[in-house]
Amino acid sequence: MIDPRTELAADEIEHLYEAAIALADEAREIIQGALAAGFSVKHKPDGTLVTSTDIQVEERLRAAIEERFACHGIIGEELPARHPDSALQWILDPIDGTEDFVHRVPTFGTILALHYKGEPIVGILEHTALGLRASAAYGHGTYYRCQRSRLADLPPEVGDDRARVILSARGNFIRYRDEGATFDALARTFPNHRIYRSCYGHTLVATGAADAMVDFHDSLWDLAAARIAVEEAGGAYRTVREFELPGGQRIYSSVFGKPALVERILAVIGAAGPQP
Amino acid sequence: MIDPRTELAADEIEHLYEAAIALADEAREIIQGALAAGFSVKHKPDGTLVTSTDIQVEERLRAAIEERFACHGIIGEELPARHPDSALQWILDPIDGTEDFVHRVPTFGTILALHYKGEPIVGILEHTALGLRASAAYGHGTYYRCQRSRLADLPPEVGDDRARVILSARGNFIRYRDEGATFDALARTFPNHRIYRSCYGHTLVATGAADAMVDFHDSLWDLAAARIAVEEAGGAYRTVREFELPGGQRIYSSVFGKPALVERILAVIGAAGPQP
Repeated sequence: MIDPRTELAADEIEHLYEAAIALADEAREIIQGALAAGFSVKHKPDGTLVTSTDIQVEERLRAAIEERFACHGIIGEELPARHPDSALQWILDPIDGTEDFVHRVPTFGTILALHYKGEPIVGILEHTALGLRASAAYGHGTYYRCQRSRLADLPPEVGDDRARVILSARGNFIRYRDEGATFDALARTFPNHRIYRSCYGHTLVATGAADAMVDFHDSLWDLAAARIAVEEAGGAYRTVREFELPGGQRIYSSVFGKPALVERILAVIGAAGPQP
Repeated sequence: MIDPRTELAADEIEHLYEAAIALADEAREIIQGALAAGFSVKHKPDGTLVTSTDIQVEERLRAAIEERFACHGIIGEELPARHPDSALQWILDPIDGTEDFVHRVPTFGTILALHYKGEPIVGILEHTALGLRASAAYGHGTYYRCQRSRLADLPPEVGDDRARVILSARGNFIRYRDEGATFDALARTFPNHRIYRSCYGHTLVATGAADAMVDFHDSLWDLAAARIAVEEAGGAYRTVREFELPGGQRIYSSVFGKPALVERILAVIGAAGPQP
């Protein structure tokens, strides 16, 4: 099958990439203001948190997209989808890691991506509190701190016990189906793991600061920028689970990072038992 | 038993606290320079990393302590102990989370503490890359971002599934004895866990951004500032394991944070099986 992204001209992608960067700048400005001036916090029906800043960022980005790209689709965490049949879909997670944002743990971030016929063409991972941003576009590479990121496989002497693997918390693995045994097997095989909530893990992997990540039971917006950021840096990205909740929302689980390590992780997940 | 710290006058503690803050300022300056100018990295015989910056910070702090407090003891991660029989012992971990420092993950930190007859009187958790520092002194409270930290118990409606518990990686739990079953039980009971290497977890707990931490198989310097930082904020600190390695080094495992949650964690650790 031909990758549909090859249908887009390079200058079209560049134009959309620049627009995405301008959107991330807007998100950053709102979040900087909120960190200085404060924000309100509510519990959503599912028990997770949402702040006035999540809503404010999503509303501002949606308005900017609607003004500039009236026919593009928009999928965001906090508000209903717009133009769901458009080939170009902006996918927004205004604050990924809201629990961290509320507690001023600086590893939360804004995830912003543009997908074309389901394939990512632009991805931005913006970490306002850290003053950092990773960004990628199809055919343009992944950039971080003004440098191109290139993921090389680990040297052969680095075994599973030393690989820096980021896992979702065990709570993710049992959120919609009980895949706790998969978490347990991964924690045993890769004891030098760490667990960051939110897109900070995606940034660490896309920039080589961690070797791979296993991210389970996520929504589309959680993972919207991860694949392009990792693949454009030369890494591997595999979706290992995909299912639909009763309300229709699709849930994804993915493994990504340095290619040979991704293969080793896939083997552990496979051996941990059949997909429930 | 009377707390030996009551033997020290308040102004003496203040004087030592100020000296510790000056030391942390020196560490910060060296680390800032290293982040800008670069540093060299070596593997230690135990497979862990050490950088030229670890050594440089420890040497500079030792020289400053020796000049100002010639009779005080010094225990540091990278160099031999000095005056091991002194009642006052400076305990230094120049860069805790060296692996993070090497990969420029900003959650590494400098741990600096002063103990009197084995009890902590001053503790500083300095996070240079985040521009943050938590500091505490006996009877003076714990401060962070210019505010006094006060740890309140979680509201009763926050169950084990939502408590923000930081665990050491599973690799810590099996480092010197196989206590992997304890990690597994904790990950099951507190699925909203996260795993940060290094003293950043201590800072999050001492400042209320996380609810509790379980830190297993550590050296004295790793935990040197955690107890005073947590206790002076009104939290609980319990050492749950203490044993000696063949070479004589003592290894500690601790649980600390919001008091009621610490009790719940102790119960899970107790139920996970007898101490190996």
